Amino acid sequence: MADPNLAATKPVIVLVQTQMAVNIGMCARAMLNCGLDELRLVAPRDGWPNEGAIAPATDAKRVLEGARVYDTVAEAVADCHQVYAATARIRHLNTPAVTAAEAAAEMHVVTAKNADHRAAILFGPEASGLDNDAMSYADRLLHYPMNPEFTSLNLAQAVLLFSWEWWSTRAGATVSYERDWELAPKSELEYYLNRLEAELDQRGFFADQSKRSNGMQKIRAFFGRSNASSQEVKSLQGIISSLTSEFRK
Amino acid sequence: MADPNLAATKPVIVLVQTQMAVNIGMCARAMLNCGLDELRLVAPRDGWPNEGAIAPATDAKRVLEGARVYDTVAEAVADCHQVYAATARIRHLNTPAVTAAEAAAEMHVVTAKNADHRAAILFGPEASGLDNDAMSYADRLLHYPMNPEFTSLNLAQAVLLFSWEWWSTRAGATVSYERDWELAPKSELEYYLNRLEAELDQRGFFADQSKRSNGMQKIRAFFGRSNASSQEVKSLQGIISSLTSEFRK
Repeated sequence: MADPNLAATKPVIVLVQTQMAVNIGMCARAMLNCGLDELRLVAPRDGWPNEGAIAPATDAKRVLEGARVYDTVAEAVADCHQVYAATARIRHLNTPAVTAAEAAAEMHVVTAKNADHRAAILFGPEASGLDNDAMSYADRLLHYPMNPEFTSLNLAQAVLLFSWEWWSTRAGATVSYERDWELAPKSELEYYLNRLEAELDQRGFFADQSKRSNGMQKIRAFFGRSNASSQEVKSLQGIISSLTSEFRK
Repeated sequence: MADPNLAATKPVIVLVQTQMAVNIGMCARAMLNCGLDELRLVAPRDGWPNEGAIAPATDAKRVLEGARVYDTVAEAVADCHQVYAATARIRHLNTPAVTAAEAAAEMHVVTAKNADHRAAILFGPEASGLDNDAMSYADRLLHYPMNPEFTSLNLAQAVLLFSWEWWSTRAGATVSYERDWELAPKSELEYYLNRLEAELDQRGFFADQSKRSNGMQKIRAFFGRSNASSQEVKSLQGIISSLTSEFRK
């Protein structure tokens, strides 16, 4: 199923001086989960292409195959219009910080106006994160407000959280499907409830007849909010039949 | 820095029949990143405790140490009031599906009313996901509307996305900090701009004096939106001084 929204310009993920190829593979997988497929690598420590990235990418191998490699951040973002730097560090530069959700929202607004506008997000090496030189290329810092007692996010998870915010806030994003089965017409449920009431009444369930109506209202509300299908109403009927039958000899 | 919101009841992450201990460790890390720390394990394949989970958990080791192990899903959720099952599968049960964001929002609403209310989220084994029996314990299915062309999410990333939605939508969540440096008073910037204008004018920058005002307005707008600090204005002054000085002999 092709998503028409994917035709719009997508942000580019730029991994700067990544140390472990396995993490590049996991980033590719996280990207493609969220509809992103353009990966750029700045001076990956162990070279490129790298066999170690393939297995963790699972079916996102095509993201790896399309990855381009650059020597410097400047070259990697040369054709981009806006650059974000993902960082948890104290800043030494006066660059405004936004959350991943805010960055994603900004990209969608800009892309809606100009489909040629490209945004890039820089992610630094696993151990140290982006250095000040790399961050100086960014218009915005991308900040993840994690648990202040434990902010250490691994590389693929940082890529995933941004990608997820971008994906889930794009135009036409699926926000919910509450139910995808066919509801029984209320008449079927009512037929069942009437039978239930009769069976209960025959067995003296409603000791005080003045409370019979109120009791059935509660029972009706309970079954009603279950949004039963016709098949489920049939099952409920079968349960009454079974419960009211004689023991088999 | 303690977060007062963490005092409220937090959802419990339940990993069902997890195959690889490394994934349990990565889940613990993702949980603690987002302020969650109660982990329950139903019949982990390789037993528990398991050394293989410790390194990938990094500093979230205490989540592993507090994990409780159960034989069945029923026992693992016995003290919980609402159960969600994370799944990408076609459903065979008529259980309503919600997104991770919707589930998180629902939990916050319920917890605000009753701090004793506990929610649990079930995550299935890596290869196959939750089976129908496990899913039958859920009131809601937790659905991740990923890229329809590539929906395969790894276990720790599924745990992270739910945890992130819960964390980033809790009461008092940090949504943004746009800027955390002190702005220079506009008078400092204006002093700089006046000097710049004079220096430019002396060098014939404004060929047509009728356009001088308009040209300076554009320059002012450019420097103004940069939200300069006093230190940065000093640097700008220094740049003019340098540019207008003689070459050093």
